[in-house]
Amino acid sequence: MSATDLQGMPRVGILGGGQLGRMLALAAVPLGVKVSIYQAKPSGAVDDFDHVFTGDWRDAEALEKFLEGCTVVTLENEWADLSVLAPMCEARGIPLWPARQTMTWIRDKIVQKRHAEASGLPLAPFDAANSAEEIAAIVERLGLPLVLKSPTHGYDGYGTATAKTLEEAIAAHERLAREGQSLVEAHVPFIRELSVLVARRPGGETVSYPVVWTVQEDHRCVAVELPAPSPDEVQARAQALAVRAAEAFEHVGIMAVELFECADGSLYFNELAPRPHNSGHFTIEACESSQFDNHLRAILDWPLGSPRPRARSAVMLNILGDEDGRESRPERLREALCVEGAHIHVYGKRESRPARKMGHITAVSDDLETSRRRAQSALERIMEP
Amino acid sequence: MSATDLQGMPRVGILGGGQLGRMLALAAVPLGVKVSIYQAKPSGAVDDFDHVFTGDWRDAEALEKFLEGCTVVTLENEWADLSVLAPMCEARGIPLWPARQTMTWIRDKIVQKRHAEASGLPLAPFDAANSAEEIAAIVERLGLPLVLKSPTHGYDGYGTATAKTLEEAIAAHERLAREGQSLVEAHVPFIRELSVLVARRPGGETVSYPVVWTVQEDHRCVAVELPAPSPDEVQARAQALAVRAAEAFEHVGIMAVELFECADGSLYFNELAPRPHNSGHFTIEACESSQFDNHLRAILDWPLGSPRPRARSAVMLNILGDEDGRESRPERLREALCVEGAHIHVYGKRESRPARKMGHITAVSDDLETSRRRAQSALERIMEP
Repeated sequence: MSATDLQGMPRVGILGGGQLGRMLALAAVPLGVKVSIYQAKPSGAVDDFDHVFTGDWRDAEALEKFLEGCTVVTLENEWADLSVLAPMCEARGIPLWPARQTMTWIRDKIVQKRHAEASGLPLAPFDAANSAEEIAAIVERLGLPLVLKSPTHGYDGYGTATAKTLEEAIAAHERLAREGQSLVEAHVPFIRELSVLVARRPGGETVSYPVVWTVQEDHRCVAVELPAPSPDEVQARAQALAVRAAEAFEHVGIMAVELFECADGSLYFNELAPRPHNSGHFTIEACESSQFDNHLRAILDWPLGSPRPRARSAVMLNILGDEDGRESRPERLREALCVEGAHIHVYGKRESRPARKMGHITAVSDDLETSRRRAQSALERIMEP
Repeated sequence: MSATDLQGMPRVGILGGGQLGRMLALAAVPLGVKVSIYQAKPSGAVDDFDHVFTGDWRDAEALEKFLEGCTVVTLENEWADLSVLAPMCEARGIPLWPARQTMTWIRDKIVQKRHAEASGLPLAPFDAANSAEEIAAIVERLGLPLVLKSPTHGYDGYGTATAKTLEEAIAAHERLAREGQSLVEAHVPFIRELSVLVARRPGGETVSYPVVWTVQEDHRCVAVELPAPSPDEVQARAQALAVRAAEAFEHVGIMAVELFECADGSLYFNELAPRPHNSGHFTIEACESSQFDNHLRAILDWPLGSPRPRARSAVMLNILGDEDGRESRPERLREALCVEGAHIHVYGKRESRPARKMGHITAVSDDLETSRRRAQSALERIMEP
């Protein structure tokens, strides 16, 4: 019997060891794709895997070890400092996706909006403000209410505020500005927020996932629902817009494109994430290929998997930390496992903190009401006092 | 902000580091369940995970390290030598599932048949043979053809032979006997072989999966098909019989029960596996909870997941090693990834050997013909010369 050494299976380097790194690794293993993970601080979410490296984003020695054997490098959050790593990848001929140009266009939300506008994507009037005086001028020009955002490091509603008066706008600016600057957007009278995931290969091939409704409370997504209630025609335009966005940003990998839908069916580009996204967790159970699977395929320049839905409806709810850490008690999880059609995902983080994403639930079924009831029931079993 | 340390999430010890250990670990991570894996020899299939221990089955020191922190221990193959480990588990109060009694009833196929018979399960006449003379007497009594099996260590058709003459029976006995003894069974004129997976908790709660047809060639399963073509009434009896088998063997965990179906609808118990099984891989994509998920839930005494099908049909084909190791070339896998609805699972084994299980494909769709075509197309893209 001849024995053939297995060679040539790729190794993907992942920057960031949170839940997105965890789920990327879980998608890599069945494909035979190896992963190496680099994290600045261990959260616990990737403790189950081998080839995990912990170090500062600028620690060339630790990064060197991480890069060993990597075929391609990607990131699970857009705040990883690439200043040392990117040149190392270039010197070694290891592709880094998303590319630096894409990251430069995305990281600062002001630059992102300007690039989106220059690319012809429809978006609400916006401006960058550097002072209270500029805020006053913007209020004069765009009216009220306004939405103010930190240009960088905002997520999950942190870094976003709605201002109904000039005073609120100035206060929000002072609180949210980074290096003195905030992003100020005209308020879009939208009826709901949508998200579309697009996977794109280096050659430009794309697939786009079914449109989901990202149900919001206080600028925070509290549920993701498939199908979105929008008319088919609006959904088709949303998908096309998301593909245009992925192309405009020359993105490679999976990208979540967040949109505003107005009562007249018009759509506005809100913002995007150049990586797997919370609004795409439903794809694990509800689509032929998950967002994690397709992110890996895209950055490896492999054929993309089908985004076709495998369930008529899906509802995703986040499991957030609370003061008592009750979401992390095994006996609570056990109860939630009793709910048919509810898939529980625990992120394995070592510490629970209020509002921290500790896991999620995706319920699937033939109709949206059932999926909602199942997801809610599972979450209540975990969280009820 | 208060931080709560996560405690109390269980750690499952898995004996064996092959593809079943790999897929058990992949099912554990989303549940927040930790795993430790012990293997006698690294195959490569669990290289992606942390907490992997390599040592002899009787190396108490290595086993000690493996057992540290384990809540429960289970096995992915029935040949792990438990002589040192089982008493260590007992001394530490760590449950070992399946229990030693179950393993004693199962490991030796002669003992297994006798226990099944004593438990009232329907099975073909059989006997144990210790010599050519005894073979002759059995041929006299049971007629020809006969099926001879090694009492232990048989799998994938290795260790099984059909004898059409006395001479063939004696030759088969001499080749297959272990410690001088072989299992001899009357030939059942079956029309097909079925498999039913049953998950059972310590308290006796069970769930049974949809019946599948395990298509055989030369005593080797070449495809697993859902739905089985058997009449509904036969399938219901098959499921009931499988549950009775799990109860008779006092099994805890997932169990695959293999059955013969005859033209008149009668069913015979063939044999069983007290662990996740090749005939259950389809459950990953095609059922609400997979066999791996439910094995973990069962041994943890957690609520069992629904075995409800999520697809109308599924076809599973093994990816076997061939002389050239072509099944392990990434460019071949890439081609197979183009086939819609075909899910490729690569086991990450370091060495390819002819007929070795290197991965599998499960294709799902609304009708069996489409699933067959998809699975076959994906396999051909990998294997064609």
